[in-house]
Amino acid sequence: MNAELARGAGDRPPTMRDVATAAGVGLKTVSRYVNGETNIADPLRVRIAEAIELLGYRRNLAAASIRPGWTSKVIGLITSDLANPYYSTLAHAAESVAWQAGYLLTTFSSEEDGERHDLAVDRLIDQRVDALLIVPPRNPGRAWSQLRPPLPPVVFLDRPAVLDGAPAVLADNAGGAREAAIELARNGARRIAFVGDSQQIYTMAERLRGYLDGLAQVGLTPGPISHAAHSQEEARGVVSGLLAEGAADAIFAANNRAAMGALHAFADSGGRLPMIAFDDFEAAEVVRPRISVVSQDVARMGALATEIAIRILQGTPPVSDRTVLGTRLILRGSEKPDSPTILDRLPE
Amino acid sequence: MNAELARGAGDRPPTMRDVATAAGVGLKTVSRYVNGETNIADPLRVRIAEAIELLGYRRNLAAASIRPGWTSKVIGLITSDLANPYYSTLAHAAESVAWQAGYLLTTFSSEEDGERHDLAVDRLIDQRVDALLIVPPRNPGRAWSQLRPPLPPVVFLDRPAVLDGAPAVLADNAGGAREAAIELARNGARRIAFVGDSQQIYTMAERLRGYLDGLAQVGLTPGPISHAAHSQEEARGVVSGLLAEGAADAIFAANNRAAMGALHAFADSGGRLPMIAFDDFEAAEVVRPRISVVSQDVARMGALATEIAIRILQGTPPVSDRTVLGTRLILRGSEKPDSPTILDRLPE
Repeated sequence: MNAELARGAGDRPPTMRDVATAAGVGLKTVSRYVNGETNIADPLRVRIAEAIELLGYRRNLAAASIRPGWTSKVIGLITSDLANPYYSTLAHAAESVAWQAGYLLTTFSSEEDGERHDLAVDRLIDQRVDALLIVPPRNPGRAWSQLRPPLPPVVFLDRPAVLDGAPAVLADNAGGAREAAIELARNGARRIAFVGDSQQIYTMAERLRGYLDGLAQVGLTPGPISHAAHSQEEARGVVSGLLAEGAADAIFAANNRAAMGALHAFADSGGRLPMIAFDDFEAAEVVRPRISVVSQDVARMGALATEIAIRILQGTPPVSDRTVLGTRLILRGSEKPDSPTILDRLPE
Repeated sequence: MNAELARGAGDRPPTMRDVATAAGVGLKTVSRYVNGETNIADPLRVRIAEAIELLGYRRNLAAASIRPGWTSKVIGLITSDLANPYYSTLAHAAESVAWQAGYLLTTFSSEEDGERHDLAVDRLIDQRVDALLIVPPRNPGRAWSQLRPPLPPVVFLDRPAVLDGAPAVLADNAGGAREAAIELARNGARRIAFVGDSQQIYTMAERLRGYLDGLAQVGLTPGPISHAAHSQEEARGVVSGLLAEGAADAIFAANNRAAMGALHAFADSGGRLPMIAFDDFEAAEVVRPRISVVSQDVARMGALATEIAIRILQGTPPVSDRTVLGTRLILRGSEKPDSPTILDRLPE
């Protein structure tokens, strides 16, 4: 096959017809190949593949996507915070499941902003993604009901569905927080502070509810409650304040940002308080005492939501609309007031 | 405006003409509005916007994108590892700059795999993204020269350009590693281990080069060199081995995975070695001693690459093809063999 001969058309992009000519096969066969049909004889497949590479042929998405039944083989994920390792873990798990099923995963971040979220939804639908995995933003934008059908399958995760009938995969936020509060009380704490983010975030509201439930269950009144810990730095300030004022004798850190901020505040002051954090996090096991956590299996959440989306694409709708994943209390020492701390030993 | 009246067309999706009728304006005005033209009188803009919302009108991407000059207002980023917080920080910075300039950022991960990377490139080009930000995968796929022009502007980051003439934004990996090795030697280390990932990764090869340069500069021979620390767990094993065998008296951790693995190995054994890590990381300041790092400004790398792409889109090509960002050695104590460790004080 001769590229110059085969090309022959000057500088215009090569067409499917050019590929057919170069490969010495019919246009229809090239069309079937390009559209992913599998019953094409191997020698023809090879010749077409070579011609496509030789000519640099690229299917025109705009033209192709007008055809009914065409899909992009891409699943779109919108999380609320690109920089949070929680969502990195979630996205990574979703990506693995998607790839194994023959889909690429593309991600957007709403940064908790409804407008940005809506634009990302529009782009993904415009691109004809096969399914949407959505973490709804704290500040909602337009209602999903305003979108005109047909929509691709939508699966919500981390926060409840905001579209009727759509499945959602959630963690048992209230249950995990309840356990943490009770455990801190069991270790002698009487004024347990809640350090977390805005209650407008579903997971936060649920964790606060669980914390209050747990305290009520053991006969304690709520300790200081802060919703101002949006970032690690803000959490550091909140916990520094609690330490300075002696306002609490234990801390429930309601997410990984709050926990990291608390660790910084401990380091700043040289003091610490017994603490349990919601969400496991990278630093938890390399500090002393090790940090006890309510662990939600965020990788499983990402994987499961993706599996549900793929099952819907394969024609098997999910059995239930809402899947609530249990959490696990992992006790490592930080829940105790007198946990032994370890002096790093030096090489001789 | 009456939705039922305005719709009037049964169940077919609303057209631009329906919007024009409902808004009481000409079709041409709706078309100009939908295509982002700004010189439309405010009252008309409001009526059109209301009609679009009322009818649930959605522009047909497939039809729109055939028009010359149409762009998606999306910038595509392909990194090599979704789960690595390094790339989360990079993506977050890119996203902020893009959003401020009116673009959404969409991200894919190649997971260091050429095939997956190439598919992601194809999808992004098919979607008519305005620009591509690319971290080339360790295992390269097809050559960029095989892609038929026109391509959107491509900016490479973290690793050098693999497309002639394309700009790249890199960190001074060799320079930073050299400084780290010299600093460890200055603190008395004589057998400095290199703990890192595969040399097929450009940044790793550069860091090894810098480490060797630094040692040569202070008259030391290389210590044990490991390229097997692909993950945190593998790094933990490598460092545990070094501790057990007494094979090194200091560690240069060549990325954040290696550093976290080393911290786990220290915690496992109760011992530690003087260490400097390449890349700052979340846990570095909450352990004792605090971990000294070669800090590359990864947020700046993400922001700068995005700014370069946007400048190209605005018609101002970059002045130089390659921008090398300096690194900063941040000394926090872990570089010394006798760094004081701090016993957490307990609340009385």
